Amino acid sequence: MTPRPGLLITQSFNKKHGEALAAVLQATGLDVEVIRLSNERGATLDEPECERVQIAFLSGDLYPGNFRGFFESLTRCPNLKWVHVFYVGIEGPLWVPLFERGVLLTNSAGANGRYIAQTAIGAVLALSRPFQRWSTAQREHAWHPVPSDQSESPTDLADETMLVVGLGAIGAEVARLAKALGLKVVGIRRSGAGAADVDVLADPSRLDEHLPSANWLVLASPLTEETRGLIDSRRLALLPDGARVLNVSRGAVIDEEALIRELESGRLGGAYLDVFAEEPLPAESPLWDLPDVIISPHNSTASINKDRREAELFFDNLRRWSRGTPLRNQVKSLGIASVGS
Amino acid sequence: MTPRPGLLITQSFNKKHGEALAAVLQATGLDVEVIRLSNERGATLDEPECERVQIAFLSGDLYPGNFRGFFESLTRCPNLKWVHVFYVGIEGPLWVPLFERGVLLTNSAGANGRYIAQTAIGAVLALSRPFQRWSTAQREHAWHPVPSDQSESPTDLADETMLVVGLGAIGAEVARLAKALGLKVVGIRRSGAGAADVDVLADPSRLDEHLPSANWLVLASPLTEETRGLIDSRRLALLPDGARVLNVSRGAVIDEEALIRELESGRLGGAYLDVFAEEPLPAESPLWDLPDVIISPHNSTASINKDRREAELFFDNLRRWSRGTPLRNQVKSLGIASVGS
Repeated sequence: MTPRPGLLITQSFNKKHGEALAAVLQATGLDVEVIRLSNERGATLDEPECERVQIAFLSGDLYPGNFRGFFESLTRCPNLKWVHVFYVGIEGPLWVPLFERGVLLTNSAGANGRYIAQTAIGAVLALSRPFQRWSTAQREHAWHPVPSDQSESPTDLADETMLVVGLGAIGAEVARLAKALGLKVVGIRRSGAGAADVDVLADPSRLDEHLPSANWLVLASPLTEETRGLIDSRRLALLPDGARVLNVSRGAVIDEEALIRELESGRLGGAYLDVFAEEPLPAESPLWDLPDVIISPHNSTASINKDRREAELFFDNLRRWSRGTPLRNQVKSLGIASVGS
Repeated sequence: MTPRPGLLITQSFNKKHGEALAAVLQATGLDVEVIRLSNERGATLDEPECERVQIAFLSGDLYPGNFRGFFESLTRCPNLKWVHVFYVGIEGPLWVPLFERGVLLTNSAGANGRYIAQTAIGAVLALSRPFQRWSTAQREHAWHPVPSDQSESPTDLADETMLVVGLGAIGAEVARLAKALGLKVVGIRRSGAGAADVDVLADPSRLDEHLPSANWLVLASPLTEETRGLIDSRRLALLPDGARVLNVSRGAVIDEEALIRELESGRLGGAYLDVFAEEPLPAESPLWDLPDVIISPHNSTASINKDRREAELFFDNLRRWSRGTPLRNQVKSLGIASVGS
């Protein structure tokens, strides 16, 4: 008797969403055996289990925890056909072997874009309104309004331009909210597909033309061979004095050392950074202490029911899989392969 | 010879906007003599000057500074006909004598509403996204994402309701931006006049019905006999657990001690406060140190060109005055008369 095909999930995922998964499997009639890998760090599948696994869901409970054991097991599954991943940016050398042997990869793009965008817009308001000033004063129990002589007045978003690089679910939502706040929004997008709520839509080849008027530069693109190192010191220097940089893409998209220099000199006005050249950001990085820099630990997406939205995306794809229809969010190219995810 | 009617401004206003004022006066043909009062604390008009003043602009440069001297001078001007004020909330016993003797009062409603609303929405995002957590971690150079087990995940604005009390320029703009963020918005407004971008519009008599579903309570009404003490301990208790309170109205609209109790006990989830029962907020107030309380020193309006927008409103009214047409932003009732402004 041939063993039933295996569907690999984690124990933690099973505990929270196992019943919902069982209902989906029953409704679709998909004949698979659910294999649950422990979330204990270092737990791996044994060889007979690996043999059976054809589908896997790499869920958020693997961070921090047993990502390594789960992933190492996947690489040993000879019959693996499809992996759904809870995040968006599938990149790095880790994925190359799976991708090259034709394993289908789907990501969770769209599940959390609105939360990342709200974080980014929260940072825009934190940097553009005098919250930093008020917060310092609050810690001192001090009543320090901005002087009425206008010498230290905040800038006006209605006079400013935001340049959004990458108009996927995140970038498009940032653009929409920025326009609601009165900013002029320029969007940079590789493909011309679909409309986005921006004032100007431009091809990546026009990036340099738009940098000198970008009071806000928002990086929301995937990390690919084209975007790696995209914002280098030359391009940072093209930004106007006082410009702010937001990065919710990947650390490798920007020259972090050049950014630090521009922030330390006061030439640039501030930054909101969710991603870094090295993660976790080392304790000795000067970024932590720069006065107008807001740091979130690759966590801009934090939201309630995040796991459920990602599970729903996976379940939707399971239904498609059972019908033989194309899956959502299929990763067509691997992003950059030479940088760790 | 009868002396020419006097238009009273401050020296500081004259320095910055005197030329623009002169151009307006010339264009309108208004025959007035500009009288400039020093911004030095304690400077007042002498009696012959008081005799002449018919129009006055109480400009923002009087805070902090010579508000008292300017105002005291006004009360001694027997021929005073009209005062334009740089702020919105004209209230308190100070104004009663001028109002009662028929001096026309106009305020600067609309000049700064968008900045106050952006501050309020910035506070909504600061409280709803994990910025407080990240900021604490940043000071310690610590990489502390929200745990992936969802135990400490932020709430989702798309599941929440905002109750906006007062739909003037500020409240309406808060409502518009809140809807863009996915909140359901209920607006409380006295008059039925005009449409606002809310999901539900309700009369003040329905306030109590809407409090139990208000995850966010935004106070943006003027201080009047009706709104003084409006949010008392009983009404605060009607809010759901974890609700956040934003006050950009006046301190006297809410029972501050009851609010502090609800915040200290953790029953309410946080607050953004621009205004207080006593201003400046005393250094010993517990509000300064409450973990989810954001304080701005009656300064939510801070913005570049604020003085210019207020001046433009005054100039527009000067043109109307010269033509004998009704002025904009005429104060029809004095707001509450028993609380200091």
